[in-house]
Formats: sequence, structure tokens, C-alpha cells
Amino acid sequence: MQTPWDYRYAQRTQRMKASAIRELLKVTEQPDMISFGGGFPAAEVFPVEEFKRACNYVLEHKGADALQYGGTDGYVPLREMISRHTNRIGINVDIDNILITSGSQQALDLLGKIFINRGDRILVESPTYLGALQAWNAYGAEYISVPTDEYGMCTDHLEEALRIGPKFIYVLPNFQNPTGTTLPVERRQKLIELADRYGVPIIEDDPYGQLRYEGDHLPAVELLDSQMRVHNGSYTGNVIYLSTFSKILAPGLRLAWVIAPKEVIRKLSLAKQGTDLHTSTFNQIVAHEVGQHGFIDEHVKEIRRVYSERRNAMLDALEEHMPEGVKWTHPQGGLFLWVELPEKFNATDMLQEAIAEKVAYVPGEFFHPDGSGKNTMRLNFSYCCPEKINEGIARLGTAFKKKLI
Amino acid sequence: MQTPWDYRYAQRTQRMKASAIRELLKVTEQPDMISFGGGFPAAEVFPVEEFKRACNYVLEHKGADALQYGGTDGYVPLREMISRHTNRIGINVDIDNILITSGSQQALDLLGKIFINRGDRILVESPTYLGALQAWNAYGAEYISVPTDEYGMCTDHLEEALRIGPKFIYVLPNFQNPTGTTLPVERRQKLIELADRYGVPIIEDDPYGQLRYEGDHLPAVELLDSQMRVHNGSYTGNVIYLSTFSKILAPGLRLAWVIAPKEVIRKLSLAKQGTDLHTSTFNQIVAHEVGQHGFIDEHVKEIRRVYSERRNAMLDALEEHMPEGVKWTHPQGGLFLWVELPEKFNATDMLQEAIAEKVAYVPGEFFHPDGSGKNTMRLNFSYCCPEKINEGIARLGTAFKKKLI
Repeated sequence: MQTPWDYRYAQRTQRMKASAIRELLKVTEQPDMISFGGGFPAAEVFPVEEFKRACNYVLEHKGADALQYGGTDGYVPLREMISRHTNRIGINVDIDNILITSGSQQALDLLGKIFINRGDRILVESPTYLGALQAWNAYGAEYISVPTDEYGMCTDHLEEALRIGPKFIYVLPNFQNPTGTTLPVERRQKLIELADRYGVPIIEDDPYGQLRYEGDHLPAVELLDSQMRVHNGSYTGNVIYLSTFSKILAPGLRLAWVIAPKEVIRKLSLAKQGTDLHTSTFNQIVAHEVGQHGFIDEHVKEIRRVYSERRNAMLDALEEHMPEGVKWTHPQGGLFLWVELPEKFNATDMLQEAIAEKVAYVPGEFFHPDGSGKNTMRLNFSYCCPEKINEGIARLGTAFKKKLI
Repeated sequence: MQTPWDYRYAQRTQRMKASAIRELLKVTEQPDMISFGGGFPAAEVFPVEEFKRACNYVLEHKGADALQYGGTDGYVPLREMISRHTNRIGINVDIDNILITSGSQQALDLLGKIFINRGDRILVESPTYLGALQAWNAYGAEYISVPTDEYGMCTDHLEEALRIGPKFIYVLPNFQNPTGTTLPVERRQKLIELADRYGVPIIEDDPYGQLRYEGDHLPAVELLDSQMRVHNGSYTGNVIYLSTFSKILAPGLRLAWVIAPKEVIRKLSLAKQGTDLHTSTFNQIVAHEVGQHGFIDEHVKEIRRVYSERRNAMLDALEEHMPEGVKWTHPQGGLFLWVELPEKFNATDMLQEAIAEKVAYVPGEFFHPDGSGKNTMRLNFSYCCPEKINEGIARLGTAFKKKLI
């Protein structure tokens, strides 16, 4: 049925495509399906009792504020909490360096809105986070892909990519989505030095940084950048840093934050005003109530324990069930690992076999802005319990063996 | 302090300006200030106990869903509740005609994202809602202004404006923000007929429709449009309808909805996916829990009682304290009324006098895309209690009399 709206869409809608992941998730609602597709936290680690206590306290004592409109930049005590956390790791920020966003997805959208003109090129890892591509496609971004290996972005290829003249660099240094790889400190150092030399700024997306299951914590790209500069008060560096409460508290709150030079925050806040006025006051005040007395630090230990067990279960199961020729990453943290089939195989085609066996994943090609990576896939290990992980990987083995052997 | 970000902003940022209202609200945080500036609901009518009950119930019984990621279109039972409400008033919709947004401000942003190419002209009432201009400026919209009188948009001037070729019409028919005026049914009829004849669709923004304090409820523009068409199942008409829980429950939730033809919802949902993935699952499930058994209908009666008293207090106080030559609207509902000074006076300049007397308002020129209306101002009557309203209007009278007499 035609409506007068049909031929009135803006040009940019031609570049808006449904996320393959979210389309896929519809299939995975079938009963008995084991899905390694989404990037869902385990519901078992949601601190439900703590939320109950916090909701009651906030409604009892701060109901009038929590249910009212709030400022665009975000609830001040929550930004103070984030600034204390950030100062503790050595980056000198105050609340004017911090904007609360409705999930990191909104931070990506707002960054696109204030920085990207049609045709601007963004330097990304290949593969990279699908949601960033989705956000920036709407603003007409083009991409310069830098290849990755088991240690993340191959910084040896960075200089040649920087010469093309990207607007900024987008990087997920810790337990990357989708590959699970972590950028070693030498590569971080090379990244900030080259970025500085070419005058190209960096967006560092770090949703999983606190979820490390082995090895030592590495300094944030923003910290290394900040250490390289003369200190004169608050952060004015080359890096915009994104993180979120989605993986350390609960994604259903839609709460994340951006750390950036003050003038960038001011521009982001202007853009946010026209986009959603502000992020839910209630959720911000509740998250502050939950987090303010060190609860998150304790809670993260529990998340690490559960996810580390699940990661191990998946690594063991892959070892046991995958046919020869299949390779995978060994993530030191985060939610994902990355599987590579022999080159002649197409993971998108093989998804049908997998779904027939009642198991799902996300084909890797969707994470490559240039459409490469057809023999790869992303597996999530945070959502299912170890028994399901083992069963799911066994099913995946069965599906692959039909084709690979 | 310079950063590499400074010279990298997108062109569109040149059109992003801080909302005068939100800047103004900073001044109004001074103690003893009486502010008629914001569009805040009265905190006294927030159903805090009901929210407490709902939060406890939801966390107890649906914690795993409420804290998890959710679908982009919104929580299905909440959309079902909205579709029942919409069907009850005669518009035939199902959940695929409904998208949940993070406040109506996000609906405006998403509509801009999918419809507005740089230079597109949008037909608006003059004055109109500032947040719509803010959202659409970022997409490079231009405006065609149609004048208004005490009955809202002057539809006699509509045809001449439609000939210029607007992309769509934006109208707030009930208790308009900023003027408080209501479009009579004859003008609604003329609006939909002319829009249909010129093939120009309509966005109907209706945040206050349920907050009527006198007179009879008028049919929505969307309903009239729908009645004009051949019925063949679900809504496929010329009108996109926006409403919100901000004024009937609480704005701190950031929950609103769009009703539109299914294909438009699909496009909006794609845009929303890249913008914030989805609106807070927790808030959606809590709002459904609060609203599902007819609570909102009862609660709205209480809001009407409180706001109607406050509107009357403001009308009485204006009668008592305003110097001669000052006129104002008599709103039948909503949150605002509109004051017109004699033509030679400038309400923006006079705000300084007002603030010196410890009372604040929003100067009317900010609501006019063409910068006219310099002798006008918007007053909010929902936020302050009747005593404060009387005192604030008395102060305003003192400030004005200094200049006007």
C-alpha cells in the first residue's frame, strides 16, 4: 500500500541496512537454538538485588529528581564517579570532560554527527565493530581498512593508511569486537606516535577493558597519549575514549560515557540536545546509587569469574569438536572469539547448516567494511552456560564436518 | 588549549546551537528564582509509589529481560498497550505501526535522519516547538512558516505555503508548545484536505493531548486523515503521529512513541538501530507494568486537576498584575500560555529586568524560525504551585511596568 512518505526518504537512507546481527537474532529465538550470535551479557550476573535496593532508595529519597527532566551532559554525581575512576588510572579529567550517552551506540552516532561530512574517510581495523559502521554510514562515511592479526591492528600498515588522510582512527584495543584480540603496548605506542605525527585523532572504544581473564591490564591508548603530552591541567589530547555500563552492570539501562577534550564534549552535548535531550535521569541516578560505594569493582570480579569459565569452556570445546584446518583466537578477556575456516569456505553460506543443527553465529564478512573475511565468524561466549557452550560447539563441529571433510 | 579535533568538525555543527531554553535554565537554578521557563511537569504528580511497586515487581519477576538488551522497535507488550489505546480512539494500528523512542525528541531526530536532505523545506507553524527546529537544523532543514492566531495555524495561509513544495508539514494541534492554542476541527479538516491535495504528508506532535482542562476532546489529525481514506486494514495514511509518556507518567524515563505506516516504522527502526540500538528495556517494562491495568487513565485525571488549578492561577494572576497592552492566550490544556507585549517591546531584552525581579520565562523569538515574535514570551504553568505562580506573575508585572508605563 503506497503512502505519500514512500518517495520522500533522504539520500542517506540508502546506506542504512539492518544489522545482520539483529536480523540473525530473530532466527535464534527458535526453541532449542544455541546462539553464539549476540553480544549479550549473561543474565545470571545481573545484580538484580542491588538494583532493587537502589530503585527503592532512589524513588524514596530522590524520586522528584529521578523522574524529572535532567541536564544534557548527564547526572553530575555519576560524572564525578566516572571522573574519579578515570583519574585513578592516571588520566586527568573533570566532569566537563565527560558526557553520559544512551549506550555507546549513541556516542558513536553523536561522534558521526559532529565530525563526519559525506565522503570523509575513517581509518578502522578490519574487521571492526559493526555498530560503528552502521552509525557512520548514515553520515556518508567511507572507510580505510587496516589489517589485523592475532594481536589486533597491524600497526606496520598504519602509516600507509594515514597517508590517505583519514578524519580519525577508530580502534578497540582490548578484547576487540569481533575478534577478541588485544593490542600489545608496543603497538599502542606506535599508534599514538603515528597518529600524532600525522595529526589524526583517535577514537578508542573500550567496552570490555575491565573484563580481563588472564595476563596484565594494559594502559589505555588515551593514557599513553596523555603521558606523551605536557601536562597542564585537564585532558586535551588526541584521543576520545568511550566506555559503558552495559558490560559491567546491565545493557538494559542504556548508559555509557565519552571522555574527550572539553570543547568536543560541548559539541557532543549540543548534538545530544537535539537527539534525545538527555539520557534517562532515573537510570543515571540508579546506576550512581548502585556504583558509588565500590560495588562495581566487586561485581566485576564475579563477572570475570563467570566469563572466564565460559571462555575456557568454549576453547576446550573448539579443541575437541572442530575439524582440522579451523583456527580460532585465544582472547584474554571480553565476550568474543574469532574463528577462521580454511579460505575456500564461506561462513555466511555455512550458517544455514549451522542453523539446521540448531546453533548460530555471526558471519565475519559483516564486520569487514570491504566485504572480505568470508571464511570467518564471531562466536560469543558470555551468554550461554558452559554446558550449552560445549553442546553448541559440538553442533557447530557437526555442521562444519559435513562441509569440510 | 588546541587539540587535533578542533578543525575537524562537520559542516552541520555550524547550525547546532544551544537551546535558549536549556541555557536559560542554568540561570533559573539561582535560589528564590521563580521559573516559568522550562516545560517541566510538576514533581508533585509523579506516581512515585506506583513506580516503586513496578520496579520491585519487574526486577523480581522479569529482571533478566529488563536488564538485558532488547529489540530496536521496543518492548512488545508496551507496543500492544499503545496499539490498544490507539485503536480505542479509532485509528487501526498494530504493533508494526509503532516504534518506541527515547523521548519524542528522538522521534524528531530520527524523522530528520530518514527524511531530510540538506536544503529541504519543512512547513511549520510560527511559532513552533524549538526542539523540532534543533533536531532538523542538524540535517540542514530550511523552514516555511505559516502564521498562527489564537486558534493555532492559520489554514487560510496554508495553500500558498504548500505551493513552495515542503517535504512535510509539522503541526502541534493540541495546546501547542509554545502558544497553548488548539486547532479547531474545521482547521484540522482543511489541513488534511490540502495536505492530501498537494501530496504533502504531516507530522502531528501530540505530547499534551490528554491534558485538557476544559472543552471537548478533538479528533487527532491522524484520525481525521484515516477517516478520509478507504479502510483496508492497518494505518497507511498521510500522517505520522508522535506522543510521549513524559507528560502522563514521567519525563525522566525518556519514553515516547511514533505511529506511522509500517514501511516508515521499518526505516525509523533502521535509523534507531545505528543511533542507540534500542530504548532502555528496564524503563519500557516498568512503564508497561505501571500502565497496563488502566493506571494512566486514572492518573491523568489527577494531573488534569492539578494543572487546571495552576492554569487558572496564572490566568487570574495575569489579569491582576499585567499592565495594560499586554495580551495572553487562554489555553484549554497543556503546559504553556503565550504572552504578547505591545509591538515595540523586546521580550529578550526585558528578560534581564525579569531576572532582576527573580522570575524567568522563555522569550518568544526563539520559537520563530524566521526570528520574528520579538515582543512575545512563553510561560509554563505546570511546574510551580499556585502560590508561586501568583508571586512570579506579580514580579513579572513589576518588571514590565518599569518599561511599559
